[in-house]
Formats: sequence, structure tokens, C-alpha cells
Amino acid sequence: MYLEKINGPADIKGLEVSQLQTLADETRSALINKISKAGGHQGPNLGVVELTVAFHYVFDSPNDKIVFDVSHQCYPHKILTGRKEAYLDEAHFGDVTGYTNPKESEHDMFIVGHTSTSVSLALGLAKGRDLNGRRENIIALIGDGSLSGGEALEALDYAGEYDKNLIIIVNDNDQSIAENHGGLYKTLKKLRETNGACEDNLFRGMGLDYRYLEDGHDTAKLVELFESVKDIDHPVVLHIHTIKGKGLPYAEKDRESWHAGGPFHVEDGSPLYPNEGGESVVFDCLKELLDTNEKAIVLNAATPMGLGFVKGVREEYVNRGQFIDVGIAEENAVAMTSGIAKNGGTPVFGTFAPFFQRTYDQMSHDVCLNDSPATFLILSPGAYGMNSNTHIALCDIQMFAHIPNLIYLAPASNEEFKQMFRYATTQKKHPVAIRVVDNLRSTGVADDTDYSVLKNKVERKGSKVALVAVGGLVPMALEVADKVMAQSGTEITVINPGFVSGLDTDLLDSLKKDHSLVITIEDGEVMGGYGQNIAAFYGDSGMRVHCHGLSKAFHTEFKADELLDAHGISTEKLTAEIVQVLK
Amino acid sequence: MYLEKINGPADIKGLEVSQLQTLADETRSALINKISKAGGHQGPNLGVVELTVAFHYVFDSPNDKIVFDVSHQCYPHKILTGRKEAYLDEAHFGDVTGYTNPKESEHDMFIVGHTSTSVSLALGLAKGRDLNGRRENIIALIGDGSLSGGEALEALDYAGEYDKNLIIIVNDNDQSIAENHGGLYKTLKKLRETNGACEDNLFRGMGLDYRYLEDGHDTAKLVELFESVKDIDHPVVLHIHTIKGKGLPYAEKDRESWHAGGPFHVEDGSPLYPNEGGESVVFDCLKELLDTNEKAIVLNAATPMGLGFVKGVREEYVNRGQFIDVGIAEENAVAMTSGIAKNGGTPVFGTFAPFFQRTYDQMSHDVCLNDSPATFLILSPGAYGMNSNTHIALCDIQMFAHIPNLIYLAPASNEEFKQMFRYATTQKKHPVAIRVVDNLRSTGVADDTDYSVLKNKVERKGSKVALVAVGGLVPMALEVADKVMAQSGTEITVINPGFVSGLDTDLLDSLKKDHSLVITIEDGEVMGGYGQNIAAFYGDSGMRVHCHGLSKAFHTEFKADELLDAHGISTEKLTAEIVQVLK
Repeated sequence: MYLEKINGPADIKGLEVSQLQTLADETRSALINKISKAGGHQGPNLGVVELTVAFHYVFDSPNDKIVFDVSHQCYPHKILTGRKEAYLDEAHFGDVTGYTNPKESEHDMFIVGHTSTSVSLALGLAKGRDLNGRRENIIALIGDGSLSGGEALEALDYAGEYDKNLIIIVNDNDQSIAENHGGLYKTLKKLRETNGACEDNLFRGMGLDYRYLEDGHDTAKLVELFESVKDIDHPVVLHIHTIKGKGLPYAEKDRESWHAGGPFHVEDGSPLYPNEGGESVVFDCLKELLDTNEKAIVLNAATPMGLGFVKGVREEYVNRGQFIDVGIAEENAVAMTSGIAKNGGTPVFGTFAPFFQRTYDQMSHDVCLNDSPATFLILSPGAYGMNSNTHIALCDIQMFAHIPNLIYLAPASNEEFKQMFRYATTQKKHPVAIRVVDNLRSTGVADDTDYSVLKNKVERKGSKVALVAVGGLVPMALEVADKVMAQSGTEITVINPGFVSGLDTDLLDSLKKDHSLVITIEDGEVMGGYGQNIAAFYGDSGMRVHCHGLSKAFHTEFKADELLDAHGISTEKLTAEIVQVLK
Repeated sequence: MYLEKINGPADIKGLEVSQLQTLADETRSALINKISKAGGHQGPNLGVVELTVAFHYVFDSPNDKIVFDVSHQCYPHKILTGRKEAYLDEAHFGDVTGYTNPKESEHDMFIVGHTSTSVSLALGLAKGRDLNGRRENIIALIGDGSLSGGEALEALDYAGEYDKNLIIIVNDNDQSIAENHGGLYKTLKKLRETNGACEDNLFRGMGLDYRYLEDGHDTAKLVELFESVKDIDHPVVLHIHTIKGKGLPYAEKDRESWHAGGPFHVEDGSPLYPNEGGESVVFDCLKELLDTNEKAIVLNAATPMGLGFVKGVREEYVNRGQFIDVGIAEENAVAMTSGIAKNGGTPVFGTFAPFFQRTYDQMSHDVCLNDSPATFLILSPGAYGMNSNTHIALCDIQMFAHIPNLIYLAPASNEEFKQMFRYATTQKKHPVAIRVVDNLRSTGVADDTDYSVLKNKVERKGSKVALVAVGGLVPMALEVADKVMAQSGTEITVINPGFVSGLDTDLLDSLKKDHSLVITIEDGEVMGGYGQNIAAFYGDSGMRVHCHGLSKAFHTEFKADELLDAHGISTEKLTAEIVQVLK
């Protein structure tokens, strides 16, 4: 057992090269111990075990600096840099996050969760080194899937002009989360097939030096390769072929399912807690659209499962020309969507809210300036979305609500989503984005609202206090109204805005008559959010306004209900606030 | 004279190929007529005259559809598609914009002003065509400079997987606005030197078919090339070598100066209205920083002149390793800036505000999540920036003010800019962005504020009414205060917030004592802007708040003072508003 004595890279250097595979095997065991019990990114980490062992054998972290792209493949790195207990001992599983984090270790350079950033960040570290007159090695580790992202391609191109030490490890396991998409993957395939010797090498075409290694699980060859480029005086790409899921046969076989997931039985990969499945209103609506409108098309950017288009389902639509995965290339997806809408198609592009951050300019310039009637599904924004600071999206309203021409809808139920989706994909006037929060529920009552007329919905008509609840918070607001009624005998008004890209000024004006307080609640940052528009609207009247939303911070590892409660947004706190006012 | 009979592409098709050069000469004359009298994008348009003539001879616009990248090279296209009077007749110069615009002509597909969008938009048009079962040609025309942008690279990669008609014309004049930057330009050079036959062809490496034409001013060869790919059944890149500024010897010689500019004497290129120059507080500060801190570095993305680093000035700093132009690659620039700050450098990245839209995710994830102490100069945001809907940036506060960790400063004078810049580049705690509006003036009084303590400045202490003016609007607010004093005898309070990423709640609280109205003015969109934070802050008090800012629209071709006045923001209107309140 070598691993128990490894508390940092220095301890690895004490081993013989011939002992490294054993260390790798032990590292893989530690990794499997945790992912089988606690879940996590399985495939990406299993694939880089040998690479990481060899890396730390050759390079001198933290003096030499490595940047992990997405950083979901940093578990072996964490195991080898003093954090092995978090993988070996269940009691310590929670000690580390699933991404690199400088607060955990001096061996982690950045907090990272989005793709395609590593080469840029490494270029920056390299330039910082140069300005300080130092000479450490700077390394970026990027997976093949991340190569298609604009930020990575811009950086590879600039690296081709840079003239000092920079080592770009392309970890090629021939897989994104789903299969790769883009012409460059044809070239990666040819490079793999020719031991790196084929024509039209994309990396050389970007001006970069290049080396290929066919077996990325051969620790001796990895050591040899890394030693050959250590202290190199110019940028070089090390194209290393690895196997995603290496070491677990079922994971090697089904690389998409084994990208990430929950706990499983190590023997056969069966899940510890089988997913019971559930309704997916998003998938149902998309499927119905594609099945009834042959000019309709669904686009996604490397996250087809987010829209319910899992393997086995999407192929039919791909063959019909109605489903496109552009790979990790959100900017291209959004601009393409605009073009499709301008040339007679009915496009819908959907991805997770944090990744829409990549498309701010394309949404504004390529889509909205051209008023292209396309539909965008902003998945999992707000507090009920992903809860790691690397993947939160608490400012979707700030991003999208102010872009001219864009109608930003916030359904409060699955039924509203359906009707809004129908409106968005049948109108031909404007771009429409729909805010698909993860806490949407069904009401059991179909929605027949005409969303071509943008008006707020009065869910409960009362007096004195109006509670305006954005999207998925409407059920909470209705509960609050019930409790306030029970405790104070007053029926308050509950408003579901439906759209958050503007105000229903007629309704707001009408409230002045018999209300003295408007309370707004939203599941994102309060500053620059929806509620402040209402506060400003009433700025010159006697109406009091309380805006509730999240504070400005990279909130992380939170439970949505608790985080909202801490910001005054819970049935109990809102009820107490209103009852107090009504006294 | 052929041109007088050309009212659309159909008229060009009536000519013989041998007559096309004459038409091209006439088109160039019309072009020179306008740019010499009215200014505009000179080099890009002079370079594509023959290409555009041949294009419309072969293809059948608007059935065949062309998308111009940036679209600043669409003047010959406009001349040949029914809009020649706007180039021949001074009285009609104002009839057309400098960019493609579907409202002007069915031959223009999109309103475009940002770079690197054409291939994505064309892919969308192509996919829309496919869904409709049609077969027209879809063409993207992209300059070499735009190739380095992430959106273009993502789209080229996806085009390499697409399998139907798409023609990508790469107009290679070996020049961005300034010189090109990035490794791919080494390959373009080799391709030019080998008549398109060198190894490691970047386009083929992306999975694309490829053809090269050395003389992009030979109309017959252009016709031959276009005819060879018309109705092609898969994507192809036509790499065409042209000369930027073709036809004006001084423009061919100094391609950077002749990218765009004002009216000039055709004989020698001397300007009709010589620029008298002026102070550039931004350049002065950057220069001082670089000259006094050897670990400091300035980054830009293909707009070095925006920072004052014109040709002849920047070379010294490039050689010192203290000035980087990454080319059109804003995402890479921002992430690199974060990396530099994390590894001991003092980086400053600056570009124009509309192009910062490209970096929303990088600012949030790569910089602010990591709290990298870097400085960002957001040039020309707000109403006093560029006034074309393609280049406005009226939502910079919405973009940046809510990102956690980012301090967003809004200087009200050149002196404040200097002091804020000094603060930003000497502190090591947080990312700092500075809002550099074009209407900053000097006060003549040095600013010695300690910006490490974020507080608003009370420029004038009065009572009853407080006027809060963002950045460059502070002088107007002081004028208003003077006039209000003169007309009503009341001294009002004038507040210069200094930072717009949060509120000075102590000051705002103190106003409650002896003020009953707070008026906010800002030079961007009011919805989601700075003023609404103040309205929300006072939502539960008796304080009245009026928020003034721009309406949500793609405002275009405006005069800043008039646009602001139409939104209640002028000395006269604000004075009248306040005097009325004080009555």
C-alpha cells in the first residue's frame, strides 16, 4: 500500500517508475470507494488516474501549476495532494468539493466548473510568471469535449502565438458528456488512428507544437512524455488517448450514462437508489412540437439529457433533422437559433442557466437586435437549480429581463409552462425565453392564458397587502395567503407576474386603491432583479414595497429552502411579516 | 457607365464576365465618393469590391443568402443591391446605415455589428432552409480578423460536421483592425505562400472542404471560383486573398489607419478635418502604470487604439512583455487577465463596452468567482458611447453591477478616473471594473478619495431633494442644483455614487431626516439599473424616489443629449421637475 504514505506530490517522487501503476491502482480504488458510495463524476476521473499519478511524479506542484478544465476530473489530483481521506473515509467525504478549490489546497489554482476555460487561465498564469521573471511549468489539462468551446479555441489560437513555457494536455477519451459534435473530432479520430501523424493537424494549424501518446494508461510512457516536455520553452500540446470510465467495465462501455451520477453497486454498476423517473414537461412539450411541426427543431449544446433527449430517444429526431447537438458551443447554438428562425424554421434552444451566461452577447446582438422569433429554455435558474458556486445561476433575470425585444416568461406550474411553450413556438414576432425552474409542480388545472397579451395574473384578489411571487414561488405565496387569512382574517392579494421582462402597469396602478404594501419574492439575486422594478414603479406613490430575494454572493452548497428562508422567503417568515403589518 | 443601370443583382447578370472589372471600378468610385466625403469603414470595403461584384454575378440574392461578418464591408453590396444613390448622391448618404439591415433591403439578412457571428448565423439560415425543403445557397463572408473570435471558431467547427450546402468565404487581407494575433494566422500566411497547399490546414483540421484563390481582385477568377461551388452539397471554405484598402495607395500602405475614419482628400488621403488630438486620461494612466510597475501588463482584444496604444506607441510595451493584443478573442482576454492576477501580475484589460458583452461568463466565473484582483476598463458605455444599435451598450450596469465580488466604479471626472485606476491597480483584494464614459471631463481638482472604502460622495449638501447622478452625469446634476437654487432658493443635495455595484446605505439612511425626494439619473437603461436599487432601498420608508434612465429599446442613430432629454435627463427638464416639487 503506497497510497497511505502519499500526502503530497513529494511523496510520489520517492517511488520508482515501476511502482507508479500500483499507486494508480490504489488511487483508482479510493476513487471508486467514494463515487460508489456518494456519487460524483465517474467517467472523467477514472480516465485520468494514471495521467495524474505520472503528472505529479514528473512535475513539481504547486510550484509548477496545473489548471483543470471544468475540474470535474480532479479527484485523483485531490487524492494525491493531501486530501485522500475525503475519498477513503466516508466520514470525510464532505471535506472536499467536486471541483478544484484554492481554499482546500495550494495545489488547486482556481475554482472552476464551466468548460473550456483551462487554456486561457493557464496562459494567464504563464504570463504572470513571465512578469515575475520565474520559470515554473504551467499546465492546462483539457478534455476533448471542452475543445469545441469558443473560450478554449480562442485560447489555443492565442497560445499558438505565445512563445514561452505552456503545456496543454488534451485528454482525449473521444467523448463529451454525450458524444462529441464538431468537425474537429474527425481530426482527433484521424490523429488517434495514425498515432498522431495524420495531415491537417488542428493544433499545428493553430500554430502549436504537438505530441501524441496512444496509451494514456501506461504510467511509464506518461512519465517519459511529461519528462520530455518539462521546462519546454514554448507551448506544446500533448494529445493523450485515454479511456473514459477506465477500470469499471460497465462505465467503459456506456460512457454517457457513466459521466456522472449517484451511488452504485461496484459489482455490476446497478444504482444504489434507482431513479423512479418522473414527468418531464419540457421533454413532453418538445416532443409534441417536433412531432406536429416538421419545421420545428430542438438545439442543445452538449447537454441533451437536460431536455430529456437521452440516448435512444434523440436518434430518431437527429435522423429527421429536427434535433441538433452542437457540442459545447453555446454561442454558436444561440446564433444558429436566430438564423433558423429567420429562414422559416421554428427553433428551440435549451441548456442550463449557468451556461446561458456564455451567450449574453449572442442573445442580445444575434437574436434580440434582429427580433428573431426563437424560443429559449433557461433550465434550472434560481435557488432551486444547481447549488455549487461553480454552477449557480442566481442572476438570470438580471441578464435577460432588460434585453430589448426579449420576452422573458416565468411559469409558475407545469401547466403554465406548457401554455407558454405553445405560445412561444407558434408566434412569429419576438424571441421568447422561458425560465424553467426545478421546483415547478403541476396544479392539475390546464392553463389557457393568452400570452400574446402580457399581463400579470391575480391568483388571489384581496386587499391591503399584495404578494408578488416570481414563477415557482407562487405556491408558497398562496400558502402564505391562506395562513395570513387564518391568523388575521385578511385576504391578501397574490400576483403571479408570468413575465418578468416588464411590468403590468395597469394592474400595479389598480393596487394603489386598496393596498398599502406590495411584497415581492424571487428565487434569485434581489439587486437588479424583478422586484426592484416594482419598487421603482411605486417610487412616487405612497405604496410601500418590500423586495425579497437573495443577497449578492456566490452562494454554495446550500439547500434552496434554507437559503431562501435566510433571506425572508418562506411560508413562515412571510406570513409573520404580513401578519405583523396587518396588526 | 454600367453602374447607373444596376438596380439589383439581376442587372449584373446581364453583363459579360469581361465587363465586370469595369463595374467593379465604377463601384469603387462610388464607394470612394462617399467615404471621402462622409467617412466610414474604408479598408474593408475597398478590399471586397471585386469579390462582391463577382458574388452577385454568380449567386442569386435574395434567394441565395449572404451573411456579412461585422457587416462593415457591405458597402459594395449595398451599392449593387438597389442602394447606389446613398453612395453617389450626397443628399442620400443618410439613407443607409454602415451595416447590413433587413429594414433597408431584402438582400440584407441581419442587423450585424459585432464580429465573428456570420458562420453561426449562416448555419442557422442553412438549417432553416433544410427544414423547409428548399435548396438555396447560403454564404457567410468572414474576414481573417474575425476568425479568432470564439463564436466563429465554434461555428467553423460545427460546420465541419454539417452535411449540406454552406459556403464560407474567408476574405483574407492579413489584417484585423490592427495586425492579427493568434497562431492561426501563421497558418493563413503559409496557405497564402503555398497557394493553399501547405500542411496542417486549419480549415481541413476542422473537417471542412477548402479552396484557395490568390488574387481576390481578379473578377474572372472570382466568378470561376464561385461557379465551381454554387449549389455545392456540403460546406466549403473559399480562402480568398484580398488587399485591404485596394485602390487607394495610401490606404493599402497603412492598413490600420485606413480601417475606418472620417472624410479625406482623395488625392493624398489627408484628412478633411484634422483631428486636433486631446487628452487621454486612460492612456496616461496605463502608461504610468506600465512605466512604474514592471509586473503590470495591459491586455486588449484587437482594439489597441481604444486604450490609446496606437501604432508606434505600443511596440515598446509589446517588446517589454507588458502589452498584449490577443486579437478578437475577448473571452480569452478576460480569463487570461484572471490568471495573470492569480500569479503575481497586475493586469488591466480594456475594450469597448459592447464587446464586453462577449465576456459575461468569463467575468462572472473565471474572474469574480475566483476574486482575482484584476482591473477592467469598460470603454464607452451608456448614451455617450457609440450610437448605432449594433454597437450600443446601454446595459453595462445590468451586466456588471450584480456579479458578486466585482467592484464597479463610475468616475465622474478624469481626476476621479485617475484615482480609481490607482486604487484598482494597487489593491489585491477584488476585481475592479471602471466605467469609462465618453463624456468624462476634467475638473482641475485632484481627487484623493480612498476608494478602498466604498462610500458615495456628497457633492452638494442641501435638503428636501437629493439628486443622485451616475458618473458622467454629475456635472449636469451640479448645474441643476445651481439653477434650482436660483429659481427656488433651495439648496438641493447632489450625490455622486462613485461605485454602482452596491449602495451607501448609511448615507441613504441619513437623507431620510431632511429629504422627501430622491431623484436618480443614469445614462443607461433604467430597468435593472442603478437607480432602482435606491428605489427598493427606500421602498418601506416615506421617501419618494424618481428613477430616470433610458427606456428598454435598441436605440440607434441618436444624439446622446437629445436621447437623455427625451427621457427627462437634461438640465432644463430636471430643474423644472425639481422646482415644481419644491413649490
